Amino acid sequence: MTGINAQWRLAARPVGLPKPTDWEYVEEPAAEPDDGQFQVELEYVLLDPAMRGWMNEARSYVPPVGIGEVMRAGAIGRVTESRHPDYQTGDLVTGMFGVQRYAVSDGRAVRTVDISLAPAPVHLGVLGMTGLTAYFGLLDLGRPEPGQTVVVSGAAGAVGSVVGQIARVKGCRTVGIAGGPEKCAWLVEELGFDAAIDYKRGELRAELRRHTPDGVDVYFDNVGGETLDEVLRRIARGARVVICGAISQYNAEQPPRGPANYMQLLVQRASMQGFLVFDFADRYPEAIAQLAEWLGAGELQSREDVVRGGLEQFPDVFLRLFRGENTGKLILQLSESS
Amino acid sequence: MTGINAQWRLAARPVGLPKPTDWEYVEEPAAEPDDGQFQVELEYVLLDPAMRGWMNEARSYVPPVGIGEVMRAGAIGRVTESRHPDYQTGDLVTGMFGVQRYAVSDGRAVRTVDISLAPAPVHLGVLGMTGLTAYFGLLDLGRPEPGQTVVVSGAAGAVGSVVGQIARVKGCRTVGIAGGPEKCAWLVEELGFDAAIDYKRGELRAELRRHTPDGVDVYFDNVGGETLDEVLRRIARGARVVICGAISQYNAEQPPRGPANYMQLLVQRASMQGFLVFDFADRYPEAIAQLAEWLGAGELQSREDVVRGGLEQFPDVFLRLFRGENTGKLILQLSESS
Repeated sequence: MTGINAQWRLAARPVGLPKPTDWEYVEEPAAEPDDGQFQVELEYVLLDPAMRGWMNEARSYVPPVGIGEVMRAGAIGRVTESRHPDYQTGDLVTGMFGVQRYAVSDGRAVRTVDISLAPAPVHLGVLGMTGLTAYFGLLDLGRPEPGQTVVVSGAAGAVGSVVGQIARVKGCRTVGIAGGPEKCAWLVEELGFDAAIDYKRGELRAELRRHTPDGVDVYFDNVGGETLDEVLRRIARGARVVICGAISQYNAEQPPRGPANYMQLLVQRASMQGFLVFDFADRYPEAIAQLAEWLGAGELQSREDVVRGGLEQFPDVFLRLFRGENTGKLILQLSESS
Repeated sequence: MTGINAQWRLAARPVGLPKPTDWEYVEEPAAEPDDGQFQVELEYVLLDPAMRGWMNEARSYVPPVGIGEVMRAGAIGRVTESRHPDYQTGDLVTGMFGVQRYAVSDGRAVRTVDISLAPAPVHLGVLGMTGLTAYFGLLDLGRPEPGQTVVVSGAAGAVGSVVGQIARVKGCRTVGIAGGPEKCAWLVEELGFDAAIDYKRGELRAELRRHTPDGVDVYFDNVGGETLDEVLRRIARGARVVICGAISQYNAEQPPRGPANYMQLLVQRASMQGFLVFDFADRYPEAIAQLAEWLGAGELQSREDVVRGGLEQFPDVFLRLFRGENTGKLILQLSESS
C-alpha cells in the first residue's frame, strides 16, 4: 500500500533568493509508520516567508534545515495508515509535515482539521499559525485599545491582513502598509482598513504623517528595514512595536539594517518586543474558537492564494513570496490528490 | 542685594562635539523673584551626557534649548531670596536651574536637599536623577531576578555604576562594559561587579561570550552602537533590553546606527524598552529612601567627579563627558561659593 514519496530537499544554503541548485528533488518509496506513528498523504503545503530563515545556518528559534533534509513546511494531509492511538485512517490533520508527498509523524504539534469550521486551506491561514500569530501578536503584545491607531506592514500578506481585521474588530484606527494599488484597494474596500499606504509610491513618511495624525500606538512589523524606521518616527507615547518578521531583510546579502530610529523608544517610553506563536500553544483552542466565530460572523475575511499544480512547482511558487506577487496565504495544492 | 549673574547660553547648534563658538558667555544683573518665586545661587552644576541631546533641534522628550537661551542643567544651590511659601532663604535645593550663577524658580520639579543623608554632590548623583534613573530602569523595566545575568554598558559612568551595584545587591551576575583597564578594575575591585569588559581592547564579542555563559537576561544600555548590537547577539530567552541612552551616537554627524541584530528580540522573545525617569516622579521618595539606605549600609558607592574652578570652565569640562575622561558623575563646583 506504500506509494512513491516525492520530496524537495535542501541542497545548499542560498545566498539571497533561493536558486534552483539550492534544491534537490527526490523520489523514493514512502516510509512506513512505526508503533506510535502514522503516515499522512499531503494535500496542501503552506509556503511561508519564515521558511527562508530556516534555510540559513544562523542561530534562530528553530534549528536550520540541514543540507540534504526535506524542506520544513506546514501542511494538511489525510492519514493513510496509523499505528498511533489518536489518529485513524482518513483523518484530516495539520502539522509540520514538510515539502513532500508522504510524511510520517508521531503526532507532536499535530492538530485535527475541523472542516465544519472552514474549508481545509483556511486551516493553514486564518485558523492556522497565520491567524494565531496575528491574534496573539496583536492582542497580547500590542494590546490595542479602542480608538488607538494600529499600523501593520506587510498588510496584504497572510498575517498582516488578519492583524488589520482584528484591529478593526477591536475598534482601532487601522492603517496598512502594502505594495501596489491593488493590494491597498483590497485592504480598504474589502477588509475595512481605515487607510492603506502603498510604500512603492515612495511617500511613506508623508503618507504615515497624513494617516496617523495622533501617532502610532501599536505597530505590527512584518517587514523591518526602512518601513520600521519610518514608523518609529511616528510612534506615540507608550507605543508597542511588535516584531513579527523582517521580510525585507530575509534575502539580504548584506548584514541586516537595524532601526536607526530606535531611540524613539526612549523618547516615547515605548517598547519593541519579539514573540513566537509557539509560546502560546496552550491557548490555541481559545484563539481558534474566537477566530472561527469572527470568520462565521463575516468580521474576518480569509484569502488563500491556492496554487494548484503539484509538488514539482514548489521552488518557483516559493519565490512568489519574495516578489510581492501573492495576496493572502500562499498554499501549494498537490493536484494529484484532489 | 542682587549680584551679577553669569550664564552660558547656547549660541549655535553644534555639529558633532560642541565648539567654543557654540556657546556665549554673558554677565548681567541677576533677576529678582516675583510672587511665588525664589532666587537661588548655584553651588554645583551637573554635567550630563543628556545635555548634548538638548542642544539639537530634533524632536525629543523635552524641547531643545533655544538659541540664545541659558543652557539647561540640573544643579544644587542655596535660596538667596524667596517670595515662595515653601522655600526660605538659606534652603539647599536642587532643580533644573541651568548653567548660570543665579536662577529664579517657581518651585516646579525642585526638591529640598537633605544633607543628613549624604553630602550635597551625592544628591546630583546616586540620590539624584542618576540614581533614580538606575533604580527605576533596572528594577521596573529590567526586572532582574536573583541569579540572572545583568549587563550594563557605560558601566563606569554615573548611571551605569549604580545599575551594576543595584544588580549586585539583588543577587545577579553583574557584568560591566567600560573603556580602559582602570575603569574596569574599579568596577570589579571597588564596586563588586562580577566581571568588567574593556571594550577598547576590541574583543567585545569574545569577552561577552566568556562572561555571560548563560546569556544576558537584562541589558541596560547607555551607549548604543556596536555595543548594543553585540549584546543583542547574547540575549537569553525572555530578555529585557533597557534603553537608557546612546552616548556613542550623540555627537555622530551621520544618522545614528540602528541595532542590526534587533531580530534577536524575536528569536529570544525579548523586549527592548525605553523610559524616562520623569514618569516615575511620584515614586522618587520611595527610591531615594532605598538608595540612601543602601548608601548608608555601604552596599552602594557613590563617585562624584567634582571639578572645582567655576562657571568659566563649563565648555571645556563638558567635553570630558565625550572623551571618556570621567568616572562617576561629572559635577562642576562653582568655586566662588565654597
